[in-house]
Amino acid sequence: MSIITLTTDFGLKDHFVGALKGKLISGLENPIIVDISHDIDLFNTLEASYSISAAYKSFPKGTIHIIGVDSERTATTEHIAMQWDDQYFICADNGILSSLIQKKVAQKIVAINIHDRLQEENTDMNVFVAVACHIARGGLLNVIGKEINELRMVNEMTAQVSSDNSLIKGTIIHIDQFGNCVTNISKKMFDDISMKRNFKIKFHNKKLDRIHNFYSDFKNTDKYTLKAFEGNALALFNENGYLEIAIYKSNPKTVGSASTLLGLKFRDVVSITFEE
Amino acid sequence: MSIITLTTDFGLKDHFVGALKGKLISGLENPIIVDISHDIDLFNTLEASYSISAAYKSFPKGTIHIIGVDSERTATTEHIAMQWDDQYFICADNGILSSLIQKKVAQKIVAINIHDRLQEENTDMNVFVAVACHIARGGLLNVIGKEINELRMVNEMTAQVSSDNSLIKGTIIHIDQFGNCVTNISKKMFDDISMKRNFKIKFHNKKLDRIHNFYSDFKNTDKYTLKAFEGNALALFNENGYLEIAIYKSNPKTVGSASTLLGLKFRDVVSITFEE
Amino acid sequence: MSIITLTTDFGLKDHFVGALKGKLISGLENPIIVDISHDIDLFNTLEASYSISAAYKSFPKGTIHIIGVDSERTATTEHIAMQWDDQYFICADNGILSSLIQKKVAQKIVAINIHDRLQEENTDMNVFVAVACHIARGGLLNVIGKEINELRMVNEMTAQVSSDNSLIKGTIIHIDQFGNCVTNISKKMFDDISMKRNFKIKFHNKKLDRIHNFYSDFKNTDKYTLKAFEGNALALFNENGYLEIAIYKSNPKTVGSASTLLGLKFRDVVSITFEE
Repeated sequence: MSIITLTTDFGLKDHFVGALKGKLISGLENPIIVDISHDIDLFNTLEASYSISAAYKSFPKGTIHIIGVDSERTATTEHIAMQWDDQYFICADNGILSSLIQKKVAQKIVAINIHDRLQEENTDMNVFVAVACHIARGGLLNVIGKEINELRMVNEMTAQVSSDNSLIKGTIIHIDQFGNCVTNISKKMFDDISMKRNFKIKFHNKKLDRIHNFYSDFKNTDKYTLKAFEGNALALFNENGYLEIAIYKSNPKTVGSASTLLGLKFRDVVSITFEE
Repeated sequence: MSIITLTTDFGLKDHFVGALKGKLISGLENPIIVDISHDIDLFNTLEASYSISAAYKSFPKGTIHIIGVDSERTATTEHIAMQWDDQYFICADNGILSSLIQKKVAQKIVAINIHDRLQEENTDMNVFVAVACHIARGGLLNVIGKEINELRMVNEMTAQVSSDNSLIKGTIIHIDQFGNCVTNISKKMFDDISMKRNFKIKFHNKKLDRIHNFYSDFKNTDKYTLKAFEGNALALFNENGYLEIAIYKSNPKTVGSASTLLGLKFRDVVSITFEE
Repeated sequence: MSIITLTTDFGLKDHFVGALKGKLISGLENPIIVDISHDIDLFNTLEASYSISAAYKSFPKGTIHIIGVDSERTATTEHIAMQWDDQYFICADNGILSSLIQKKVAQKIVAINIHDRLQEENTDMNVFVAVACHIARGGLLNVIGKEINELRMVNEMTAQVSSDNSLIKGTIIHIDQFGNCVTNISKKMFDDISMKRNFKIKFHNKKLDRIHNFYSDFKNTDKYTLKAFEGNALALFNENGYLEIAIYKSNPKTVGSASTLLGLKFRDVVSITFEE
């Protein structure tokens, strides 16, 4: 039983995603196909990189991830397949796999070279489907590509640390359904640098000096119930291990969200300063 | 073969729904996972309650429904699992199951108490997945929770009847894709009260004195074809058994809808008065 | 193993699609259900016709396509089932199947007549589900309907050719996720008429004199890399074989798209003139 996930910027209005699934079903016996997202901002490899790094952990070994974002093969951009942490990733070499590579070394990466062997029309998705079916049937990566050692990187996935370890400077790399703003500051980086010092999280002219363990982690007392904290800003490390600026019980369409209420946008700076 | 449905406010842009499915696939052999909705208005337990009450009927016995809306466990809100009409429902005790409980008594309800037993990170969804897998494998509810007898209720799911039975006062609890406005007035309540008396359905300054059996149920003649009735307002009991104010062949994005043309909004009053 | 696709205007917010899948799962053992689109513009049979004609090719023989757009059965509109190119299509006779019929003759078409035989509530979708389950179990079309020979046609799926073959006059029938504008001018029509003459593609006051083989098919040189061509307009035949006006690396939400930058809208004229 093969498990294949899809992460694309194809949207759900067009027939594109349905057609892609039809091709997978035609090539494999009863695959389990799971949508990660089809609403990645168009051609946005940074958002795709964040999405796949957040999702892969929930899938079992052997899962095959197809990422159809900015996937046209050009003179300077190869199609690639990567084995990493016992899962497989198929996409164009446009930086999408940076977030994974920065966590752990790949087991194998190949530049796909089957384009001339395909009988049917040679679209990017037909190539990805052919490779996914090959892997699902137990085929080796070397059969469908030439091994390579380097991938193109997207640098924005990593926050910067000052030389004296007094400052982490991150940026917002994703704004979610709830309007919560995810930064590129990882829990691992924070733990390495902070050494239990006091700190201030700063963005625009706002400061926070505490990181929540969960969204409703307020000091509610007899005087104030949780209801009283709705609309409050907070910071926490999300399930994906990245620092997130959130509003408790936000709603972008009604009461507002971290993005709308705090004026935070994609790529805005969020920094953490540590006391001596 | 286990069937699991998902109703959440997670949206489809983020990786949240894909990750949830990955966890279910990791825990069960080839489950059938069906999306009911992931666009429930954020934290809106009334809309979630309507959705699940409208959807469950289409699923076979033994189906497990996970409802991820306002699902954070707090000091005052338990995670619960309910067996009801031979199906299973997993959510937070925030009123979502009101609409079902009002129709029929539950077979069993438990407050989930496995939170300390989970090895992996203790997110709300990890708890719901663990419970769903337990039920899908034939496990008993008592093993994962402590039996309780009462649930928190959302009162807005029920319309009010005047003491002399001359009036039903309802409100709009859902506006659908077509801009049709669903009220909390059930066909059962209407049939019990009306006793075949004439009636007027009133909202804002508009009146309707007839309930359609189907959308195109107009008195078309040689003179007027169905085309002539496009844009007309009508009332009917929808497939879910609730009174709906609709516009024939509406389109919120172009010609308008019951919501836009009649000015009806979430929680607006729709009443039915009966003649002596 | 039966494969069933769904193309509707039901949207994804309501429970409608989930309920439809529940009914299919209740009626068939472990069907593979694939969404083509649930965001067809409401009641827009032209857009539904384009979608299904673009998607069917990716599915194996025997696939059953349910199309729930403008599907209410009325005095003048039958429910139909069609066997075509060894696949099956179930919808109302409202022109949706025009795009297929124009490519190839149907193997069999029936007007569905089981409405009186259904026990449960007689909704359009219950009828379509009953027919899909019948076909999936190997049942014959004649058992659930009366054979007919003609279907209602949507004429807008075909571009017009001038009597002297100097002009093809098409219109935009679909605008996709990337804001690219798909016309009703097919590659087959173009190849038949052009006879390798030079040509100009015209829309509003803009002209293009070349058809790309793929989106990034620019004449990049040492001086200009692909990056320099982002934002350029181009024409190409898409995977579905229809002429498309596109912008290289468009994004309707940020840098703009063929629709927003060139001012092209649904039903606007795109013509091709050929030189002597």
